[in-house]
Amino acid sequence: MATHELPPVTPAVELPPRLLLGSGPSPVPERVLRALAQPTIGHLDPAFGALMEDMKGRLREVMVTENRATLAVSGTGSAGMETMVVNFVAPGDRVVCGVNGLFGERMADALTRQGATVERVEAEWGRAIETERLTAALDDHTAALFVVHGETSTGVCQPLDGLAEACRAHDALLLVDCVTSLAGQPLELDAAGVDVAFSGTQKCLNCPPGLAPFTISERAMERLLARSEPCRSWYFDLRAILAYWREDTAGAPPRAYHHTAPINMVYGLHEALAIVLEEGLPERWERHRRAHEALRSALQPLGLERLAPPGEALSSLLAVTVPEGIDEAAARKELLLEHGIEISGGLGPLAGRVWRIGVMGVGAAHEPQRRLVGALAEIFAADPADSLSALDAAWS
Amino acid sequence: MATHELPPVTPAVELPPRLLLGSGPSPVPERVLRALAQPTIGHLDPAFGALMEDMKGRLREVMVTENRATLAVSGTGSAGMETMVVNFVAPGDRVVCGVNGLFGERMADALTRQGATVERVEAEWGRAIETERLTAALDDHTAALFVVHGETSTGVCQPLDGLAEACRAHDALLLVDCVTSLAGQPLELDAAGVDVAFSGTQKCLNCPPGLAPFTISERAMERLLARSEPCRSWYFDLRAILAYWREDTAGAPPRAYHHTAPINMVYGLHEALAIVLEEGLPERWERHRRAHEALRSALQPLGLERLAPPGEALSSLLAVTVPEGIDEAAARKELLLEHGIEISGGLGPLAGRVWRIGVMGVGAAHEPQRRLVGALAEIFAADPADSLSALDAAWS
Repeated sequence: MATHELPPVTPAVELPPRLLLGSGPSPVPERVLRALAQPTIGHLDPAFGALMEDMKGRLREVMVTENRATLAVSGTGSAGMETMVVNFVAPGDRVVCGVNGLFGERMADALTRQGATVERVEAEWGRAIETERLTAALDDHTAALFVVHGETSTGVCQPLDGLAEACRAHDALLLVDCVTSLAGQPLELDAAGVDVAFSGTQKCLNCPPGLAPFTISERAMERLLARSEPCRSWYFDLRAILAYWREDTAGAPPRAYHHTAPINMVYGLHEALAIVLEEGLPERWERHRRAHEALRSALQPLGLERLAPPGEALSSLLAVTVPEGIDEAAARKELLLEHGIEISGGLGPLAGRVWRIGVMGVGAAHEPQRRLVGALAEIFAADPADSLSALDAAWS
Repeated sequence: MATHELPPVTPAVELPPRLLLGSGPSPVPERVLRALAQPTIGHLDPAFGALMEDMKGRLREVMVTENRATLAVSGTGSAGMETMVVNFVAPGDRVVCGVNGLFGERMADALTRQGATVERVEAEWGRAIETERLTAALDDHTAALFVVHGETSTGVCQPLDGLAEACRAHDALLLVDCVTSLAGQPLELDAAGVDVAFSGTQKCLNCPPGLAPFTISERAMERLLARSEPCRSWYFDLRAILAYWREDTAGAPPRAYHHTAPINMVYGLHEALAIVLEEGLPERWERHRRAHEALRSALQPLGLERLAPPGEALSSLLAVTVPEGIDEAAARKELLLEHGIEISGGLGPLAGRVWRIGVMGVGAAHEPQRRLVGALAEIFAADPADSLSALDAAWS
């Protein structure tokens, strides 16, 4: 019996070893990579359906929500943003949009493309927006309020307290970007009264990029189902997507095919969520807080001061101003190419002035921070002793 | 020195072994899975940029195009469709859309959502559309003609001959869905005069789903760059995406961040493309043709007749009518759960009447087909001898 033989394998491309301490992607544990490499099965296979259900349950736990409509959008974090916009904002809607960094700007841009009337409430890049200014911008014609919980461009955490009540008083939805905060910063979506939230996988979840965790409150679901106009987007149409992600219980109609889900990415996210839940959310939030403070104390002797003021900082991303006299781009390049450590530069008005250092998942730990601090001291030709002892003391 | 220990690992979810012979995903070689599991590096890392360039080159070879603007869209195949629509069709545009199956219907739907005036040219599900009917529908106000080269819902291959000339005569773009045909059916995009094409990874490329190969002719690029209105979609805005995917040559501006590419999926696609190129495109096309005919001849003794007439069949997907007296859903379920083999049911008007069997990449081979034919004979309580000898003869 003749069989068709495929050619022999050649080695995969070799990639340099990297310690990912930038704004994301974050370091991916071997365990998640192994999960990703499990054999592909069908997107309509009952075994995949069971995995999806399990994954949804884990996602609910990590997002601290009871929302039945909790899923992973088939794209990166920004695909979650787009899904939010095309499903919950109609052309002509008035939307209040908090803008204090690149990701607020990005949302304002996406809302404008959708035809919304965007009411911007701004703060300086590096500061949170005062709650009163956000709530004062709402009126009875406002469809939604959007804020970025964790601004990846500045390392600022936007408080959510008081927003849900104000939104409900005006019958507006509360929409939140929690890409960089999820699983790294205290966040309980139901308790905060969030209606729709999206996240990414490549930040504090330590999974490669490619999916956008997404959740929808009952209140937002009612609005979605009441829409008379079809969604402008075919790919991100949640009414169709939810017919695929729905619960596959006895007696329920089977999952309806919409598009082929990124199966292996779901394997990876499923495993990454398990790691988060094994540690425990409060423990993980506390570890990120501690790691942020440890790194901050170690970077101060090198002249790297945090951008965000106390009380406004995001645990999972430490943005620091680069001292005068340092060529930030050259130093960052040396860090990457000579030391194999990635950190991120500034964006927009902060370009050339700040570094953004990730404190995300397995990166929020003593050893990777020690490598970073040692390498930076070497690049700065500085004595590392003060920095390292501050770091060690903070972790001891 | 105290370090923060993460909890011990638990085993990944166990998934059942499956032979994927449905409409996709197709079987993923171990080599691609291993590539997928390589450590994640940054999306702006020069090493990732080099991998992207290499991947783009491989994609051009497999698509048989010189288009500089060749990339992978960050979503599944349908994300490629949406990227085509939102970038190359403006609200109010007249678009001629071939509809002879679900994926033509889907495009007509997406075009309507985009606000286009859709001129449908239909054929029965299971038949190709006559070229003359497509070209006759063009006029000087037509912005584009869209056809599905490989209709995954019916196993029909739409001939492209003559379409490009007619499009050019009317200054219309030729837009093609080659999700299921790419690397399984003879297709040379430049020679066929295709302006914009999208594909998927989970068909004849044997990569998990999660990226949409995409290519744009110079002619289409000019039109894209001349657009005065911003793209309605932020996530699929090609002008921004191409600033990230552009060539990273000496002297050129660095890649501009748009969204975080699905890094590990790019690893997988890069490797999957290598496997295609090692075999050689003409050899691969011929193997798919042969595998299609082999399977067809083996299924006939079981009463399974091909839907598409001779000359209109797509090598990579064999749609067959299910004989009277067979409960197709029950048989398909038994095949999956008892034999671990996935095939697909019919869609739309063909639901309950046909099976769609993938002949894709490593699935287009003697051994997997022998497993399928043997299992089907068992389920049908039929003597497998005629089928197996037909199959063996076709592969000998």
